[in-house]
Amino acid sequence: MMAKYKVRTDLAVESKEKFEKDHVEIEGVVIREKYDRKRDVRTTVVTIESDRGAKAMEKPKGHYITIEAPNLTVPDEDYHREISKELAEHLRQIMELDSEKKILVAGLGNMDITPDALGPDVVKNLMVNRHIVKEYGVNAMGENQVHIVSTIIPGVMARTGMETLEIIKGVVEETKPDMVVAVDALAARSTRRLNCTIQITDTGINPGSGVLNHRNKLNEESLGVPVIAIGVPTVVDAATIVHDAMEHLLETLEEAEMEEFLAELITPHLHTMFVTPKDVDETLKHLSYTISEGLNMAFSRV
Amino acid sequence: MMAKYKVRTDLAVESKEKFEKDHVEIEGVVIREKYDRKRDVRTTVVTIESDRGAKAMEKPKGHYITIEAPNLTVPDEDYHREISKELAEHLRQIMELDSEKKILVAGLGNMDITPDALGPDVVKNLMVNRHIVKEYGVNAMGENQVHIVSTIIPGVMARTGMETLEIIKGVVEETKPDMVVAVDALAARSTRRLNCTIQITDTGINPGSGVLNHRNKLNEESLGVPVIAIGVPTVVDAATIVHDAMEHLLETLEEAEMEEFLAELITPHLHTMFVTPKDVDETLKHLSYTISEGLNMAFSRV
Amino acid sequence: MMAKYKVRTDLAVESKEKFEKDHVEIEGVVIREKYDRKRDVRTTVVTIESDRGAKAMEKPKGHYITIEAPNLTVPDEDYHREISKELAEHLRQIMELDSEKKILVAGLGNMDITPDALGPDVVKNLMVNRHIVKEYGVNAMGENQVHIVSTIIPGVMARTGMETLEIIKGVVEETKPDMVVAVDALAARSTRRLNCTIQITDTGINPGSGVLNHRNKLNEESLGVPVIAIGVPTVVDAATIVHDAMEHLLETLEEAEMEEFLAELITPHLHTMFVTPKDVDETLKHLSYTISEGLNMAFSRV
Amino acid sequence: MMAKYKVRTDLAVESKEKFEKDHVEIEGVVIREKYDRKRDVRTTVVTIESDRGAKAMEKPKGHYITIEAPNLTVPDEDYHREISKELAEHLRQIMELDSEKKILVAGLGNMDITPDALGPDVVKNLMVNRHIVKEYGVNAMGENQVHIVSTIIPGVMARTGMETLEIIKGVVEETKPDMVVAVDALAARSTRRLNCTIQITDTGINPGSGVLNHRNKLNEESLGVPVIAIGVPTVVDAATIVHDAMEHLLETLEEAEMEEFLAELITPHLHTMFVTPKDVDETLKHLSYTISEGLNMAFSRV
Repeated sequence: MMAKYKVRTDLAVESKEKFEKDHVEIEGVVIREKYDRKRDVRTTVVTIESDRGAKAMEKPKGHYITIEAPNLTVPDEDYHREISKELAEHLRQIMELDSEKKILVAGLGNMDITPDALGPDVVKNLMVNRHIVKEYGVNAMGENQVHIVSTIIPGVMARTGMETLEIIKGVVEETKPDMVVAVDALAARSTRRLNCTIQITDTGINPGSGVLNHRNKLNEESLGVPVIAIGVPTVVDAATIVHDAMEHLLETLEEAEMEEFLAELITPHLHTMFVTPKDVDETLKHLSYTISEGLNMAFSRV
Repeated sequence: MMAKYKVRTDLAVESKEKFEKDHVEIEGVVIREKYDRKRDVRTTVVTIESDRGAKAMEKPKGHYITIEAPNLTVPDEDYHREISKELAEHLRQIMELDSEKKILVAGLGNMDITPDALGPDVVKNLMVNRHIVKEYGVNAMGENQVHIVSTIIPGVMARTGMETLEIIKGVVEETKPDMVVAVDALAARSTRRLNCTIQITDTGINPGSGVLNHRNKLNEESLGVPVIAIGVPTVVDAATIVHDAMEHLLETLEEAEMEEFLAELITPHLHTMFVTPKDVDETLKHLSYTISEGLNMAFSRV
Repeated sequence: MMAKYKVRTDLAVESKEKFEKDHVEIEGVVIREKYDRKRDVRTTVVTIESDRGAKAMEKPKGHYITIEAPNLTVPDEDYHREISKELAEHLRQIMELDSEKKILVAGLGNMDITPDALGPDVVKNLMVNRHIVKEYGVNAMGENQVHIVSTIIPGVMARTGMETLEIIKGVVEETKPDMVVAVDALAARSTRRLNCTIQITDTGINPGSGVLNHRNKLNEESLGVPVIAIGVPTVVDAATIVHDAMEHLLETLEEAEMEEFLAELITPHLHTMFVTPKDVDETLKHLSYTISEGLNMAFSRV
Repeated sequence: MMAKYKVRTDLAVESKEKFEKDHVEIEGVVIREKYDRKRDVRTTVVTIESDRGAKAMEKPKGHYITIEAPNLTVPDEDYHREISKELAEHLRQIMELDSEKKILVAGLGNMDITPDALGPDVVKNLMVNRHIVKEYGVNAMGENQVHIVSTIIPGVMARTGMETLEIIKGVVEETKPDMVVAVDALAARSTRRLNCTIQITDTGINPGSGVLNHRNKLNEESLGVPVIAIGVPTVVDAATIVHDAMEHLLETLEEAEMEEFLAELITPHLHTMFVTPKDVDETLKHLSYTISEGLNMAFSRV
């Protein structure tokens, strides 16, 4: 019954928490956690192995790596470098970067809306070499083996008139990368995760992320090559914060009453709004650089 | 008792509504309304005449003109031109532009946060002439009499290390304008006012507006010359939307209960967040242009 | 012999002038001119009909429409609207817009280099509808017949690692437009043409335009659909202005001497530089808006 | 006689070279050079001690430190860090940063023209603390003594209608810094210096720099506090490259002939144009960051 007010999350780690709260263990879902106390960095790997697990988690089968680092919102260069390294290691493993790869990195989102510009901002700082290798060969890079990197900023549907999927698919078919990395701003359930959580998954990008919806999934099925998604929650849906604020209160009410209140309170109008921190400009500048550096590190050697 | 949860509004028209809801008439506050049904534009002039009125409205004495035009969020060029003209007329009157004036226009706010960039965006489209008149005389403008216009984008305190007031005050003392026009994004109480309401006032800018606080007031007292403020609500404080959602619910509770719930629900954390529509980029592009054109029209003749 | 110092032009009207100076008439090249004295707008249509004409003009066979309007660098809104209309008329004719068309507009160039940002800036102001028509049908646009418009800003090779052609080709194959309109900054031979000349051609875009080279041609042969190119010269190659300055001087010298001097003077280094007016920011802001409006007018009715 | 075609340079090191070419030693001008072969960095300190030296060099008395580092145009992070350190050391000495200072950093230039945006870009990456120290005291910074930093981006006269000097002067009088650091793009005589030369001087900024002229000098005389200028040549006047190309050629001509040619060749029109490298966007991104880091290092301790 609550379903119609249910607020969506892009983060597997949030789905997980929901189950833990209910003391439920889910078959086909394996969870590993690592906590680095000194740096206050928690890394969680959720592996959804079965269809049953996928259904329970409301996420496709695959790996979901979450790096939670509250200090990411603080502009400390050394700390950010550590996170870049951590990100690079996970990417090297999940992307199997110990053998040569041709990689297309797509920066999704609207570069004219501050919290949605994460993807484009990350892509702007990447080192590309596909055009050089194509013209002068691998040796032009001073190495025997290199990962070949290209990037695209597809823009958003309201501006292009095209689905993000259509643009990326066309470019993939024309330029034949081995895999796609999609970087995007996500929506979180909780404001406390904003700008300090990085999720890496090999299941692609699901619809409805970030400020604007990319309605068609980018994944191996739709693109024909594996899709690694890197997401950072930068906004919360305005309806979510109202919903959350109500939750405790509602526990004291009868279900019928609750339903009535919620229907009144969470108007469709609220879903056209997003919530983001007032210092989003500075935080995202550092964060996008940290992710770019992680990608550059990961791609810099075979 | 509710005071500590009270959510601030920058709009006189919202203070007014509150009293109307309570069927209270306030001494020393005069309200005139005009509604243009065809264009769906409502213009309200609130004049606060007495200290008592000022106290009741929680706003300084002076004039507050509010243009409410729901269609401002629609990109219709002709409609926007009508609003520019309406804005120009009000400015010509309140600024007494039938005699020559030296005008400094300040675009307040952070140009790197989409909904806070309104002030800088407006200022970028203004026609300035002070440097030309200073070097070649009024006749260089092809007129006998002109308003002399200069502009400044002071930036925000977190970036400059200085109060907005300090920068504007220094520039005013050095360049001696007759009056200052300050354009700024405001915070509204209600999401339905976002990006379709323009407030003009001769009382200056009060602290705590928009995304980031300009803590010291810009007004005739602090700057030594009259300050006309043009404000558009582009954000709502995240705490506000929770507060509003609760309001109806709370009416059913005892006061003591209510207080307890509110204290739990509206955390200080929420006050570091803002809410804004997902299409804020497009809406503000048109809106800032509409306001620039209104200013350009108002200043174009003596 | 002079060939190796020859400076390239993207403008057919400049090739034409060269021949006129030499009092040469070229077979297979038809030229029509119209001069609007009141507005000081000169429109030239060069039609290259034969291979011989193409060889002489160093341009592919097809139509080249040039609108020369010196006042385009002046910020006069009414004048710019006239040019938008003129542009729209030519586009309606050359694109045969009296029957429904699916149009992809590509904004070429580097949006981070002021004079090269023309293409992206034009595209940002276009009205797109492909996603709406695809989801809700033509009637959603309030018409029986509409042109279906989508846009892309592909970025530059140094950033993407891909040829512009590869990106556009992929998107064309995926989204199947009837034709492509490519908007780009061009290099002119003469500084006096900068920012006040618009060239429309149905022959596509040739390599080596503007600030950065798009090395592979975008035309019907490479893309499979007709390509209309709209170009505005915004830069001159630095080598060109030296070459031009020398020209008169060189006429007084022996050919052998001349060659020697030129070899010394026009170093390869100069070809890595471009020349552009100091007020390029303001001029391009108005110009890109004028072209966007021309496109919007042309596409607004069948 | 040549005077009217003489092309101006903002770089003392270029004035010096001119004299060296002529084998002239100038009384009252002391020159020290240091060359770091490994990193290919040449540092030149020109001290103009007498009025006679000032007249000969066409520059005010004072210190001019020039760091020439050809590799600055290459995006090598470690190399850039070295240059930041070198810059920081010179600044600490010339600004006497071993005792507490209140510093206002001004980023001059037009942020909408790529090669002129150096000053604003540098300022955007600076760490400011004046507002924190003013509100919470020095201890809030975790130190006993700190340099107090504030920044301003004044904009350009064509946009503000005010001289840069007027704005800075007003802010200086209101906020009372001990010294001003002005960062600006300069014009060089030679394209080979572009984006790889940093000049630091304690004589302020002279008029006519960069893309747009700041006509009134910013120096101790005009502002009342010492002015340290940090400049990087990012453009060459278009007339200059023609002039230079001609120079060798002209040596073969009679003076009368020469004058005639130059009058024809270097038209006033050319002075409204500037020349800059085609990769100016990437180069300036790294360069402005390098200078910001140098300033942040210099200011980070007393």
